[in-house]
Amino acid sequence: MNHTIEEKAYSAKRASVHLANVSTDIKNKALAVMAQELQKNKELILEANRKDLEEAEKMKKEGKMSSSLYDRLKLSDAKFNDMVSGVVDVAKLEDPVGKTLSTVVLDEGLTLYQISCPIGVIGVIFEARPDVVPQVMSLCLKSGNATIFKGGSEAKNSNRALFETLVGAISKVPEIPKEAFHLAESREDVAKMLEMDNYIDLLIPRGSNDFVKYIQDNTRIPVLGHSSGICHAYVDESADIELAKKVCLDSKIQYPAACNAIETLLVNEKIAGEFLPQMAKLYADNNVELRLDGESEAVLKKSKFDMSSACIQKATEKDWDSEYNDLILSVKIVKSVDEAIEHINKHGSHHTDVILSQNQKNIDQFAGLVDSGNVMINASSRFSDGFRYGKGAEVGISTNKIHSRGPVGMEGLMIYKYILSGSGQVVANYTGVGAKKYVHKRTDEKYCRLQ
Amino acid sequence: MNHTIEEKAYSAKRASVHLANVSTDIKNKALAVMAQELQKNKELILEANRKDLEEAEKMKKEGKMSSSLYDRLKLSDAKFNDMVSGVVDVAKLEDPVGKTLSTVVLDEGLTLYQISCPIGVIGVIFEARPDVVPQVMSLCLKSGNATIFKGGSEAKNSNRALFETLVGAISKVPEIPKEAFHLAESREDVAKMLEMDNYIDLLIPRGSNDFVKYIQDNTRIPVLGHSSGICHAYVDESADIELAKKVCLDSKIQYPAACNAIETLLVNEKIAGEFLPQMAKLYADNNVELRLDGESEAVLKKSKFDMSSACIQKATEKDWDSEYNDLILSVKIVKSVDEAIEHINKHGSHHTDVILSQNQKNIDQFAGLVDSGNVMINASSRFSDGFRYGKGAEVGISTNKIHSRGPVGMEGLMIYKYILSGSGQVVANYTGVGAKKYVHKRTDEKYCRLQ
Repeated sequence: MNHTIEEKAYSAKRASVHLANVSTDIKNKALAVMAQELQKNKELILEANRKDLEEAEKMKKEGKMSSSLYDRLKLSDAKFNDMVSGVVDVAKLEDPVGKTLSTVVLDEGLTLYQISCPIGVIGVIFEARPDVVPQVMSLCLKSGNATIFKGGSEAKNSNRALFETLVGAISKVPEIPKEAFHLAESREDVAKMLEMDNYIDLLIPRGSNDFVKYIQDNTRIPVLGHSSGICHAYVDESADIELAKKVCLDSKIQYPAACNAIETLLVNEKIAGEFLPQMAKLYADNNVELRLDGESEAVLKKSKFDMSSACIQKATEKDWDSEYNDLILSVKIVKSVDEAIEHINKHGSHHTDVILSQNQKNIDQFAGLVDSGNVMINASSRFSDGFRYGKGAEVGISTNKIHSRGPVGMEGLMIYKYILSGSGQVVANYTGVGAKKYVHKRTDEKYCRLQ
Repeated sequence: MNHTIEEKAYSAKRASVHLANVSTDIKNKALAVMAQELQKNKELILEANRKDLEEAEKMKKEGKMSSSLYDRLKLSDAKFNDMVSGVVDVAKLEDPVGKTLSTVVLDEGLTLYQISCPIGVIGVIFEARPDVVPQVMSLCLKSGNATIFKGGSEAKNSNRALFETLVGAISKVPEIPKEAFHLAESREDVAKMLEMDNYIDLLIPRGSNDFVKYIQDNTRIPVLGHSSGICHAYVDESADIELAKKVCLDSKIQYPAACNAIETLLVNEKIAGEFLPQMAKLYADNNVELRLDGESEAVLKKSKFDMSSACIQKATEKDWDSEYNDLILSVKIVKSVDEAIEHINKHGSHHTDVILSQNQKNIDQFAGLVDSGNVMINASSRFSDGFRYGKGAEVGISTNKIHSRGPVGMEGLMIYKYILSGSGQVVANYTGVGAKKYVHKRTDEKYCRLQ
């Protein structure tokens, strides 16, 4: 285990091509053993976790660790069971490797297959939560990707106990190259990982916005993730008011710390007088602080809404670019769906935005022009999530514009290769005078390999 | 036209969301007008090209420009016609925008659609070849992507004449936002473009390896391209010798300057005595210089091959990492398909590699473990090309491991968004005690918008 991070990365890269070719049965067998060994080593793992928690408690007392970080560090009994059943569930997911994505006959006896394959080596850099290790390792194993983990020092003992248990399990299945999985432990290793674009094909950071942003800003390796979630709900003049109230409330309060909770409410001026006082009352009843622009303040003051019943502030320009992650909401009146779209594309983080409307033209306009990974029509922003989308498992939520966008499941860990199968064909025969013509006929034929 | 590059990029970003929503008919209409206007302005464009050529001739005489660069700069009559028909052909390609990629019913009245959409703003940075402008502009227009072009100063007049003709054409179709297309002209603009990851979503560099490498090394924007093509052919012990000779010859000599020509021939030791002398004779007859490792030299010396008939050098370690782009080939004897795979994954550029074999097990091993975008089985490496693969048009060849790989057509300019269509659903009802269950049923239903 005393290899340098460079040695680990090189060994992961070499192992990755072999892991890419392991059969579904073997991978599922390894997942079953992983689940068993986790269960078997439960006490050992929880003991390691208790060690981390002791340290963490000291830090908490000294004000060096937040309660939420502490909570995420803690492996409760329920969390442990979820962790194990998570590994079991991955075995049930369809194997994404080796699928024939398209087949084109170029000419007689010359067929081009596009075959799904793993990306290669994934670097997972995460804070606090040790349950990331089994979750990501099982997804990477099933998708045939080698993985280098780097967890936070605050979870050092937990991460090591989990990692060693899982690699020990994999060792019992000799067809799986165990060099495909590595744990990096020192802080210096992170900086080195960010530079290893020759070995690491994709980075997945898990942690605070600042943490993800730091990773994105300091590497040339593609990063799957998002550093902020500034989500909006727009209430159109045609909105069903009761429906809009339900959705706007849920989008804010169901779990305000989540990236897919809304931070700004945009209300069409034609419906504001009727909608906003009712909505403000609902928010006030649920302890949501409101940051109002001049017009929405005027609307509320003119209404029967009791301004003293709520915590109310004036919104400043900064509010439109703020992710509160808390029971705070900025509110702005807009003249039209176009102004709402313009505001969202300018201030949003291209994550998730909601329209409340009964007018199909405005809905189409909004869904077409809002440049976000997720557009919700008359439904809560909180649905924007891998589990709720039915992906089985979530690798992350991406606000990138390439590869994968929105909630990302195992498909985000896949790429493809082209395999051209011929019988001696040369390009010279397809060029110049008397050139043979390409057929370019799509078929449903699958690529077959022995086995 | 005197906007700064920042203004151009911001205006492209704003226009991109509108371009993303233009209908297929309108886009095809614009493409037709673009082709007409090119034809109409032919003399003007060729005149501008002649101006560039005059300058270029001086540079050529002073040794500051290569003949090949000069040739790429020159718009011949044939090249001009190809350029125009290229634009017409793009109109015939299927519109990749707005396709329903998947549909999942989350619950009654709550349906999730995954819809293809353009990436946004593409930055195209290219050397010399002015025909890139209409080619890329038509592909970007059809795929709904805004584009910023930056051509080389040596083609300044040609690029401007082409660009102004095309934007003039687009102006005749008012539904197309003409602010979606911009031309950058100064060298400083390139450096600025590389930093604009807030506006530019994808960079496509076209030019020499060094040029592409420079772009890749100096931006955090994703780059679609490849900076080198070190391709291999491996001749297995089971190869059909006549077939292997044909394919290995074509892979080297059909167009040696191409990125998909082979640079290294790997020969299994069990077939080398029979195959290599015949192959060496063929290469010698076609003026290919051979750089031999010790074992292949020994094999040839022991055979009837006339060593003086060919240009022969000893290979050094450096040769295995060299892209000659010329009639030069390095040759190495390997003990097994595994040694060949190991060599290719270590020294290759993950572009295109060939196996000549009649043994299905070895073919599967090679196709599975070679970590390249294209694996050719008993067919020439030169087939690795967008046109030959039937893509209609090639945006570039990618050796990336994410988004798109191998020859990339318009699909490489696409991403998707999720649209969740509901009727007031909130997440609160799907959590906790008495939670509603998700259905997660896949259907073939397409997303519909008014129009």
